[in-house]
Amino acid sequence: MLNNYNTEDKVLLSVDCIIFGFDNEGLKILLIKRDFEPEKGKWSLMGGFLKKSESLNGAAIRVLNRYTGLQDIYMEQLYAYSEVDRDPVDRTISVAFYALINIENHNTALIQDHEAEWFSISKMPKLIFDHNEMVAHAIRRLRYRTSTKPVGFELLPEKFTMRQLLELYEAILDKELDKRNFISKINSLDILVKLNEKDMLSSRKGSYLYMFDKEKYDAKLLNHFVLNL
Amino acid sequence: MLNNYNTEDKVLLSVDCIIFGFDNEGLKILLIKRDFEPEKGKWSLMGGFLKKSESLNGAAIRVLNRYTGLQDIYMEQLYAYSEVDRDPVDRTISVAFYALINIENHNTALIQDHEAEWFSISKMPKLIFDHNEMVAHAIRRLRYRTSTKPVGFELLPEKFTMRQLLELYEAILDKELDKRNFISKINSLDILVKLNEKDMLSSRKGSYLYMFDKEKYDAKLLNHFVLNL
Repeated sequence: MLNNYNTEDKVLLSVDCIIFGFDNEGLKILLIKRDFEPEKGKWSLMGGFLKKSESLNGAAIRVLNRYTGLQDIYMEQLYAYSEVDRDPVDRTISVAFYALINIENHNTALIQDHEAEWFSISKMPKLIFDHNEMVAHAIRRLRYRTSTKPVGFELLPEKFTMRQLLELYEAILDKELDKRNFISKINSLDILVKLNEKDMLSSRKGSYLYMFDKEKYDAKLLNHFVLNL
Repeated sequence: MLNNYNTEDKVLLSVDCIIFGFDNEGLKILLIKRDFEPEKGKWSLMGGFLKKSESLNGAAIRVLNRYTGLQDIYMEQLYAYSEVDRDPVDRTISVAFYALINIENHNTALIQDHEAEWFSISKMPKLIFDHNEMVAHAIRRLRYRTSTKPVGFELLPEKFTMRQLLELYEAILDKELDKRNFISKINSLDILVKLNEKDMLSSRKGSYLYMFDKEKYDAKLLNHFVLNL
């Protein structure tokens, strides 16, 4: 393919990681304070350049690990951002990835010397380059995803109440949902196991706890459904 | 960002174009016979290297135009393919784009000296590199898309019968659909205009012709619906 390639046309390739988490305050995103120029000191997604010996997915996993210590996080490719002026210094194309993780399970693993911090998606700071656009795109993708794939396994604790699941969907979709309607639609997906166990903190009578049926959940990941909430 | 970048890590960036068309024989894809090494003479997607002065989308449009003469074709980014060994000669990452076009409207525009040819998606030849994987991915995306966005405006003639629309969906989804059920679901989307005009070739009584209501169609492109066929 060298016949139509000029060395002048070389561009840099990077990856950026959008990490979503959920806790009792809602949907959040993990950002770092950038510690080199340009834009040093500004909030940023976690990013880095691709090495010749790795795939884009491999680079995203390496970058996430370097900044947070997180391992084995499944990330999905979102989009390749390539506007000519998106990086003020170099001609860089960046492929964004996103992942969903459980904040409680992983928080202690976060490496502190990079100043990583969780932000509510409703209170995002101004980020460097086109990173705000990447985040907005990832939120749209996540919303879209709720209508065709199950969401929650990576974001909720192992055992959760129906209210927690409802609040997760409300946080992602950024709207209030009718509880009875939601429960009936979620139940029709047949991915939950109702436990003979209650969370007694949430109300006087207590609330039944649920788990995901991992096998059925994974099957639905492969065979999309249609869910209209 | 130069602090963690090595010149050894330079990789090449290309784009590949997956062009879907539809005619009375079904869903098709536009391929070219590759006229340079490696893999000269094999069937391939239309591809080329990114220039420093253009976005990925700009490169895809330029490449498509160079091989086919087609202009102003709206293409959507599909995925960045980056496996280390995907190209046997250079370390190349390719971003695939796909587009839907009307074969009848555009066929005369196809430049013949590149040996471009339409293939039924059910009779695809073996393609170079990972191009078969790209095509399979694009078909999955197109199928998925039918459940959340309207499809057809770019693929059907301006005026079409309900049977043609049904056959388009059947070709994309690769399954038979119940006609009455399909008509009722499509009508509920409210994107069609029924004309006071019949196609007299398709049956003795004739079949009413329809057009897309472009304004409503475009609104649905932005605000996804949920369609379960």
